[in-house]
Amino acid sequence: MNLAIKHDDISAAAARLHGVAHRTPVATSHTANERTGAELFFKCENLQRMGAFKFRGAYNSLSQFTPEQRRAGVVTFSSGNHAQAIALSARLLGMPAIIVMPSDAPQMKIEATQGYGAEVQLFDRYTEDREAIGRKLAGERGMTLIPPFDHPHVMAGQGTAALELIEDVGALDVLLVCVGGGGLISGCAVAAKHALPRCRVIGVEPEAGNDVQQSFRRGEIVHINVPKTIADGAQTQAPGRFTFPVIQALVDDVLTVSDAQLVSTMRFFAERMKMVVEPTGCLAAAAALEGGLDVRGKRVGVILSGGNIDVARYAALLGHR
Amino acid sequence: MNLAIKHDDISAAAARLHGVAHRTPVATSHTANERTGAELFFKCENLQRMGAFKFRGAYNSLSQFTPEQRRAGVVTFSSGNHAQAIALSARLLGMPAIIVMPSDAPQMKIEATQGYGAEVQLFDRYTEDREAIGRKLAGERGMTLIPPFDHPHVMAGQGTAALELIEDVGALDVLLVCVGGGGLISGCAVAAKHALPRCRVIGVEPEAGNDVQQSFRRGEIVHINVPKTIADGAQTQAPGRFTFPVIQALVDDVLTVSDAQLVSTMRFFAERMKMVVEPTGCLAAAAALEGGLDVRGKRVGVILSGGNIDVARYAALLGHR
Repeated sequence: MNLAIKHDDISAAAARLHGVAHRTPVATSHTANERTGAELFFKCENLQRMGAFKFRGAYNSLSQFTPEQRRAGVVTFSSGNHAQAIALSARLLGMPAIIVMPSDAPQMKIEATQGYGAEVQLFDRYTEDREAIGRKLAGERGMTLIPPFDHPHVMAGQGTAALELIEDVGALDVLLVCVGGGGLISGCAVAAKHALPRCRVIGVEPEAGNDVQQSFRRGEIVHINVPKTIADGAQTQAPGRFTFPVIQALVDDVLTVSDAQLVSTMRFFAERMKMVVEPTGCLAAAAALEGGLDVRGKRVGVILSGGNIDVARYAALLGHR
Repeated sequence: MNLAIKHDDISAAAARLHGVAHRTPVATSHTANERTGAELFFKCENLQRMGAFKFRGAYNSLSQFTPEQRRAGVVTFSSGNHAQAIALSARLLGMPAIIVMPSDAPQMKIEATQGYGAEVQLFDRYTEDREAIGRKLAGERGMTLIPPFDHPHVMAGQGTAALELIEDVGALDVLLVCVGGGGLISGCAVAAKHALPRCRVIGVEPEAGNDVQQSFRRGEIVHINVPKTIADGAQTQAPGRFTFPVIQALVDDVLTVSDAQLVSTMRFFAERMKMVVEPTGCLAAAAALEGGLDVRGKRVGVILSGGNIDVARYAALLGHR
């Protein structure tokens, strides 16, 4: 079995991120525990720098650039949080960055990316190919392309979220991780299975965007159309060539939840835990709190992946019953 | 100077609360620091048990009841958070509780209070006298009345919030505290001035409900009509006979902020810090972030007093520009 990353890559990423990324807190809730009959440990990546776990993978990648790569800079394509993560990492490391973003990305994410000093180039996600645009820019300007999930350095960085969670709370029976293209879950699965071989690692996708679930069940990468879901960070069309083999090897199951379940979960976090969690960030929690996944009697780690959402959009979703 | 509480009362309260109340985290924000030119330390009492600092004072009071008092139970009147605080404390200590609540209190607070097992009795806050109702109930049933702020045990309990903040972050030049009837600020002022005699302690009230500011400036207790403000936890009509002398002796100034400034601050916490803070809980922060209080170059403690707000109401306030 020759996977793109191994546990040592995650330890090395943790060392690079030390003192740069936040060691995010782990939150608990009596109400969540009562509702599920389990002990839930929420890893609050919504409180990570720039508001999402994506900073881990981005910084881990950029901090390994050679001096020549740093001079030319980085280019990426992203539906949002990876964009800000690359922009912030590039600023911290003093290199130029171009971000190819869908024109319908939340305005707040576009502005935040520009606010970190990156150049933003918009495209239409329903008609144009972001990867091709990114590659063309990389070629023209000699920049290094760091894609949002399908890169070993990105995957290893994301895995540090699970590494920290397990260091902080100890043994877990289940680890629930939200799934877009599989960067987070592949890193987290490597970290979790190394520390806790018997921990079940379960991915959670939006119902409308279950490319990874389909791929996982069929045993090969399945492509879907751009899904329409409020989980804008999980609007991927297929798992990656690096992430998918890790998911096949180490993930135990991939579940889905509906947009309505995401909204209920978002409301739960606001009402009971006083936290803003973006819809994509609610995926893993929704499986346990709303999706009927039976976790009774278990110690369950739950990655809350991010908290970036336009306030007006957040208000509209919260207010809608 | 013979004040209702001294520093030893706060230390004793801290010992009673140890392992029962949450030691709430202190949050920081690059954006908040950039905006104010200061270093802000937010004490997150929105993450306290039942969602507000009020648990501290309530539990500190009820845990000092004699066995006879415990058997008869506790009665109180409250616009919300003190109600839940007394209800939860009574449940933890195994005693009956009756809460006299205004009929226009947020539905979520009424339900949460009942959820903790307390009996709720509603009254009209614009026509009826809640203190008289509370006293009548206390007399009829032999219960002990613990008012929402004007009680030395309540004040001492609330002061543990500042005690912890200073233990955690060290010296502060300014401590900003929201003000309703003065329970929180009187306790916090005693704690702060003991540890840091040169720290300026500043109270912040809603513009429409500046009973404490008027009293402070005139040097005697001033009564106002029930103020109309979104800061429902600060709709007090006058400071108390125990709290006011402490405020006079130890507080350096009392400022006000508008409801619009509270909404902007609430939005800031959602957008930038991924936290739900109720309008009353935003008072102290609003003075620095929106109200133009000059704190440049200072280390500033800010108590975020609570996070309890109906989600529908929260959504409506966030969505309104």
